[in-house]
Amino acid sequence: MDARTAYAELVRLLRERAVLASVSSLLSWDEETVMPRGGTAHRARQHAAIAGLVHERISTPVVGDLLGRIEPLCLTEVENANVRLIRRLHDRARKIPRSLVEKIASTVTLAQDAWRNARREARFATFEPWLEQVVRLKRDEAKALGTPVLYDALLDEFEPGFTCAQLDAVFVPLEREIQRVLSRRNRAPLGRAPLRRRVAAEAQQAFALETIRAMGFDLERGRVDPATHPSTIGVGPGDVRITTRVAEDDCTETLFCALHEFGHWLYETNLPGELWGQPAGEAISLGLHESQSRLFENQIGRGRPFWTWCFPRIRKAFSPALDDVSLDDMLRAVTHVEPSPIRTAADEVTYNLHVFVRYRLERALLEADLPIADLPAAWDEAYEKTLGVAPRNDAEGCLQDGHWSAGMFGYFPTYALGNVVAAQLYAAAEQASPRLDDAIARGEFVALTSWLRDNLHARGSTLPLASRLEAAAGTALHIEAYGAYLKGRYSS
Amino acid sequence: MDARTAYAELVRLLRERAVLASVSSLLSWDEETVMPRGGTAHRARQHAAIAGLVHERISTPVVGDLLGRIEPLCLTEVENANVRLIRRLHDRARKIPRSLVEKIASTVTLAQDAWRNARREARFATFEPWLEQVVRLKRDEAKALGTPVLYDALLDEFEPGFTCAQLDAVFVPLEREIQRVLSRRNRAPLGRAPLRRRVAAEAQQAFALETIRAMGFDLERGRVDPATHPSTIGVGPGDVRITTRVAEDDCTETLFCALHEFGHWLYETNLPGELWGQPAGEAISLGLHESQSRLFENQIGRGRPFWTWCFPRIRKAFSPALDDVSLDDMLRAVTHVEPSPIRTAADEVTYNLHVFVRYRLERALLEADLPIADLPAAWDEAYEKTLGVAPRNDAEGCLQDGHWSAGMFGYFPTYALGNVVAAQLYAAAEQASPRLDDAIARGEFVALTSWLRDNLHARGSTLPLASRLEAAAGTALHIEAYGAYLKGRYSS
Repeated sequence: MDARTAYAELVRLLRERAVLASVSSLLSWDEETVMPRGGTAHRARQHAAIAGLVHERISTPVVGDLLGRIEPLCLTEVENANVRLIRRLHDRARKIPRSLVEKIASTVTLAQDAWRNARREARFATFEPWLEQVVRLKRDEAKALGTPVLYDALLDEFEPGFTCAQLDAVFVPLEREIQRVLSRRNRAPLGRAPLRRRVAAEAQQAFALETIRAMGFDLERGRVDPATHPSTIGVGPGDVRITTRVAEDDCTETLFCALHEFGHWLYETNLPGELWGQPAGEAISLGLHESQSRLFENQIGRGRPFWTWCFPRIRKAFSPALDDVSLDDMLRAVTHVEPSPIRTAADEVTYNLHVFVRYRLERALLEADLPIADLPAAWDEAYEKTLGVAPRNDAEGCLQDGHWSAGMFGYFPTYALGNVVAAQLYAAAEQASPRLDDAIARGEFVALTSWLRDNLHARGSTLPLASRLEAAAGTALHIEAYGAYLKGRYSS
Repeated sequence: MDARTAYAELVRLLRERAVLASVSSLLSWDEETVMPRGGTAHRARQHAAIAGLVHERISTPVVGDLLGRIEPLCLTEVENANVRLIRRLHDRARKIPRSLVEKIASTVTLAQDAWRNARREARFATFEPWLEQVVRLKRDEAKALGTPVLYDALLDEFEPGFTCAQLDAVFVPLEREIQRVLSRRNRAPLGRAPLRRRVAAEAQQAFALETIRAMGFDLERGRVDPATHPSTIGVGPGDVRITTRVAEDDCTETLFCALHEFGHWLYETNLPGELWGQPAGEAISLGLHESQSRLFENQIGRGRPFWTWCFPRIRKAFSPALDDVSLDDMLRAVTHVEPSPIRTAADEVTYNLHVFVRYRLERALLEADLPIADLPAAWDEAYEKTLGVAPRNDAEGCLQDGHWSAGMFGYFPTYALGNVVAAQLYAAAEQASPRLDDAIARGEFVALTSWLRDNLHARGSTLPLASRLEAAAGTALHIEAYGAYLKGRYSS
């Protein structure tokens, strides 16, 4: 087999893997939105079967052999990225036994069901044995991957190449910066009160959809459904699905979910279609993905230009709920900063503190410093210390997020990385289109979305995060842009 | 490997196949209900990938080898059924190349999309090239299977062991019988007019759900969703999903869809759970499946006992739409017999004629007697001759059903077989519980559903259709019970 044929075969194999992985995505979407509860046990079997097949296609020695045959080739940028990324995926996968992959896929499906029940009952004990199992399995996975720091092995899945050492280099100064912003923040006398208006779920959903459609969302290439957990799931090219949450006593809840998920949707939808199924055609990392969602949720969604456009529309759509609220009331409410126990309800400043707590705790769980049974107490203590708030029960405490039940250890840090990256990218986008704010105030988003598409989305994974960030924003990862953004908005 | 180990390995392999096949079911349900249109092309790839894997697991020589090693065993009834059914599946599958299986799975996904568009436009030409492709592929499949009569190869997939010769032996006398019933039928002066009341989709859906829940439907083990085509899709044990259609100007449309699909749901839900994934644990055939749905739709749903219970409820639920309708008006309307162009809207007597037309035409398409381009004319001619009605356009003519776009050639005959079998089974159920009618008139269905479960559903496929029918109804397949039923209800 010559080098060219080997490359083609490699791409074919990876595409086959991607098609199977996309089936898992549909299984997950279905679970989150519509699956009858009686289907849970069987869903675990389906996930395990597909996960095993996906793993087989990347861990097989055939991939190593094909990679070896390609070396003589003079590669294009895309081919080069594919080879680099396939090598990485293959090296990871062949260290993990297929049986472990299948066991994790099956266990997390059942664990998520147990977690939902536990959260409903606000009873950690219901979830504890499942968390025990998941942590043990993820520890086995990390050990099989064999990084010196156990957590690094799992972090690497979501943020390729990143380590705890690098995270700490970002998070330690960032935490100081945030505490500084927090201590000097502006105080809105009404807090978030202007948002606490009762608006029916259907009206909130319709307004959120109308808003993201005006920004470019396309129902021919996606859906929006209600779910307990807002998320974006790419089922395949042309089919990227958003879920949003609704709280009838908070009239912007669904809107902010939709803005956030729209960022993810845009990234997935703008990926280079012709490279679908090749690693070079995928999103670079979860951190970059989060930067897209948080850019729309925060840089855009909590800014005056967006609300200049959105405010008359929402007031009309929700009338009379917001009739006595002014644009300035609204802006103060969506930028009100106040430590609180729930991550997904947090303002954008303290949000990062929620992430730091989780990062430290999940690392302790994984590295076995923290016994599972001690998690609720450790959680409450960390919240007291970091945010100065006390959860009233486990549902408001360590049961609030589904990530651990889903086996996603190493995921949380990408949220804070996303915040940092979003600030760098937004600053670059503003430099590229100096009248960006004016356009947004008129409800015109195409300058921004085109810039993101051309500089990030449509580039797939042809470069790693650091280099792509350099190319798009002109600088390496740094916290200065984010610090300046927070200071500008929150302590002016 | 000893015989016992070989058997265990065989069962494991078949279970793996069944898990993958259940993933295809979810892909199909998703397509029918919620998939954004942009997802079609990728969905075709997903179907092809899964179909190939399913095929691989049954066509592999490993299965033949394992079957050979089992021979010395003394088998239980279940084991014996598994061996018989796996042998049959394996012999079929190894004659068909995997590439053909994948090509069919992918083509029918795209063909169904083309068919939906063609039907919307009432334009056969839009669908013609796709039908051409599907017919060619299904012909290749039939040829690979190598039965003397080409159609028999495809019929056998849905009705194992059945041939055209056997079908004709049932259908020819049945058609005579039906024409006789038709010529002597009672005439209701109002026809179906009492049903033509406008009732909102939501109210119809809620009433249909409430009705089948009273009959045993369980939302923890299923769902009901609106779709263009009513169907029942088993995603896995504990997750069997119904779709229903709604027509706001026909107030019993959704109810009858739900009754029909409830029969399918009950069969799937009552299959022996401990045998899930083994052929012995599956439904015997499509004909028997249809007998269950048609029993609830017709024997129950068009009978006086059911309406004695249902009528006050529906009148109240849809008030004032049915305030001026009496129980007898309603009964006459749901048993009104009148030839019409649409199969799914047909009364239960002429329904069979729709099936005979399709059976003859699809056989002619497959065996290449009938050029694809001539289908619309041949269809209209057959309707004129058999039912005495003329479709107004292709949407009302040869584009009305999705089966051919889905590659389901050989499926239609099972509807008429189901009618015949339903009459035999219902007669047997009545003999077993002589006060069945009284119970149903009180809204008590458990005597019937238990009888069906114990005598059919929970038995899986441990016997072939003929023997199961003998065991449950005491007789071989015959048309007398159905003839007596039709005469009793339609020419008394």
